[in-house]
Amino acid sequence: MSESHARRRHDLRARLRERELDAMLVTDLLNVRYLTGFTGSNAALVVHAADEQGAEARTVFCTDGRYLTQAAEQVPDLERVIDRASAMALAERVSAASGQYRRTGFESQHVTVDGHEELAAAAGGVELVRAPGLVEGLRLIKDETEIEALRMACAAADRALADLIEHGGLRPGRTELEVARELDGRMLDHGAAGPSFDTIVAAGVNSAIPHHRPSDAVLAAGDFVKLDFGALVDGYHSDMTRTLVLGEPADWQREIYDLVHAAQAAGRAAVVVDADVREIDGAARGVIEDAGYGEQFLHGLGHGVGLEIHEAPALSQRGDGRIAAGMAVTVEPGVYLPGRGGVRIEDTLVVRPGTPELLTLTTKELIAV
Amino acid sequence: MSESHARRRHDLRARLRERELDAMLVTDLLNVRYLTGFTGSNAALVVHAADEQGAEARTVFCTDGRYLTQAAEQVPDLERVIDRASAMALAERVSAASGQYRRTGFESQHVTVDGHEELAAAAGGVELVRAPGLVEGLRLIKDETEIEALRMACAAADRALADLIEHGGLRPGRTELEVARELDGRMLDHGAAGPSFDTIVAAGVNSAIPHHRPSDAVLAAGDFVKLDFGALVDGYHSDMTRTLVLGEPADWQREIYDLVHAAQAAGRAAVVVDADVREIDGAARGVIEDAGYGEQFLHGLGHGVGLEIHEAPALSQRGDGRIAAGMAVTVEPGVYLPGRGGVRIEDTLVVRPGTPELLTLTTKELIAV
Repeated sequence: MSESHARRRHDLRARLRERELDAMLVTDLLNVRYLTGFTGSNAALVVHAADEQGAEARTVFCTDGRYLTQAAEQVPDLERVIDRASAMALAERVSAASGQYRRTGFESQHVTVDGHEELAAAAGGVELVRAPGLVEGLRLIKDETEIEALRMACAAADRALADLIEHGGLRPGRTELEVARELDGRMLDHGAAGPSFDTIVAAGVNSAIPHHRPSDAVLAAGDFVKLDFGALVDGYHSDMTRTLVLGEPADWQREIYDLVHAAQAAGRAAVVVDADVREIDGAARGVIEDAGYGEQFLHGLGHGVGLEIHEAPALSQRGDGRIAAGMAVTVEPGVYLPGRGGVRIEDTLVVRPGTPELLTLTTKELIAV
Repeated sequence: MSESHARRRHDLRARLRERELDAMLVTDLLNVRYLTGFTGSNAALVVHAADEQGAEARTVFCTDGRYLTQAAEQVPDLERVIDRASAMALAERVSAASGQYRRTGFESQHVTVDGHEELAAAAGGVELVRAPGLVEGLRLIKDETEIEALRMACAAADRALADLIEHGGLRPGRTELEVARELDGRMLDHGAAGPSFDTIVAAGVNSAIPHHRPSDAVLAAGDFVKLDFGALVDGYHSDMTRTLVLGEPADWQREIYDLVHAAQAAGRAAVVVDADVREIDGAARGVIEDAGYGEQFLHGLGHGVGLEIHEAPALSQRGDGRIAAGMAVTVEPGVYLPGRGGVRIEDTLVVRPGTPELLTLTTKELIAV
């Protein structure tokens, strides 16, 4: 792992030099984790921009005393400072060698107004320059270490759902909460550190609520059951939705299922290098609109996943830009009929030259249990 | 509940007037929840300061379309705006009636540097004034609705531990992870929405690590097993630590257990109205220092709990100020002997006139299982 982190710092340096920054003060914990592998709850990092051997020597990591051993194991290749006020300690450190860090970027999209005032005071003669989104820009394109973590997270979710079905976990009489709990437990059985977000189990009319929270509602024969869930593995989040039917599907259920199924396939087919995010959304949305259900598809088509469950890019009409190889995204159209039921089908996939790599492998044929 | 939220807004208004603010833009989700009861994942609130009937009429809540129904149920008594960019929408709203909101406070401890720039532009002629910690100041003193939620959260944890022990969940051969998972499940059985933080199960030498993460380490006869866990009920967090022994305790185990037990009792006894937080810490720490283990008590004595698992006040030598009736705090001294084992004993309690109210009721006698 240590090698990928060094490469990510190397890539960040190129961006710093483009912006004529001498260094970057990274205070967002996920960004620190991305650049170092450190998983504790308090840390900061100064990455120096120099395009030479010296850059790593002037790159300093800080955490507090609770993580002394962990930091030595996870961040063996950088100088480590131990201080509870990690960002402040590094600002002071930069100030003490201000000649080397004259223009230092900071994460203005994460640092608070009060925090910035304190950092600026500690940084003394160093100019703190707004530099939002630099690390997030790197995180957009996943490297193979990250994709492998996503693959394992998606596999844990696939296996959990297979076990749930095989052991009769989806049956009339159970509550949504019971099903959610079993699904969460089965993801742990398959190596997840936990669910990657609060699992959604929505049965019957509740399936028409896009983000229903599981309740004491009881599953009944004939219900749609919508399961939207994911696993967390090595800090990476999988995301998958499947909608099943308890027993024989009615005609209206088969109709909207087939529609969403076709829209999802169209959306996946549009996930090609250089495609505009609005066009990808439009590819799936068009199928649903043409069938007269455009008003019942209430949300964007998908989003990036990685160290966060929702990250860039947004595949939606509100989004902006084009996708590139190595991005990990969801494709998740839905049709929701209030008072009746709804269907969403969602995969996590990786943009590749040619066809995207599908990470969530559970069948998308309508499963009747 | 609606009544307590109106009372909290009323109390906030008094603080706004003290600071000569016309209104406060609340963007932190927990603070919005505290003031309205809204539990969704996107919301903002403008509270107007006027000391009259009109104040509630000029107090406006905003969330996005996903929460249309939920907002109507949870925030029936305020005007509701539906907009995805909730904070920006309210800043524009304030700008449009700038005569009524001339000096509007914002949460400078939560709003980012970039976020502030956008808000200030949207607020137009309204002056956005730094006003950090105003709602957190109110949250320091829990009302009876909040204390009841904490009581239920602590009861769920107490019952889960009792069940775990009674059903033989603590026995040689199990892993720390298995125990953690069972304990989490049993909290759900007793009404928790989830654990209030990542459950700590630390066996044998791992019990000497203050914040050990449960691993595949196997429990063995003679081990200390340290369990630090809590339940989440209605958004409120309980926090409790108990240290047990698998089998007959050795002399050294009994010695440090009795020491921590005595220190914890001394700490609890010091939790009286108007006590200085450093003195409370010192009351427990003195007992441990006198026994020659001062260096092995590596952290502060305790912290506030409520809508966050760690909130003000800090009961520690780094802390500042005095405690007051209605605060909810933990008291959790520990002694950690690297390579051997450690003991921590922690309760959650409410500061009351006279003796504090103990919310975590599990015995603190040494349990040998």
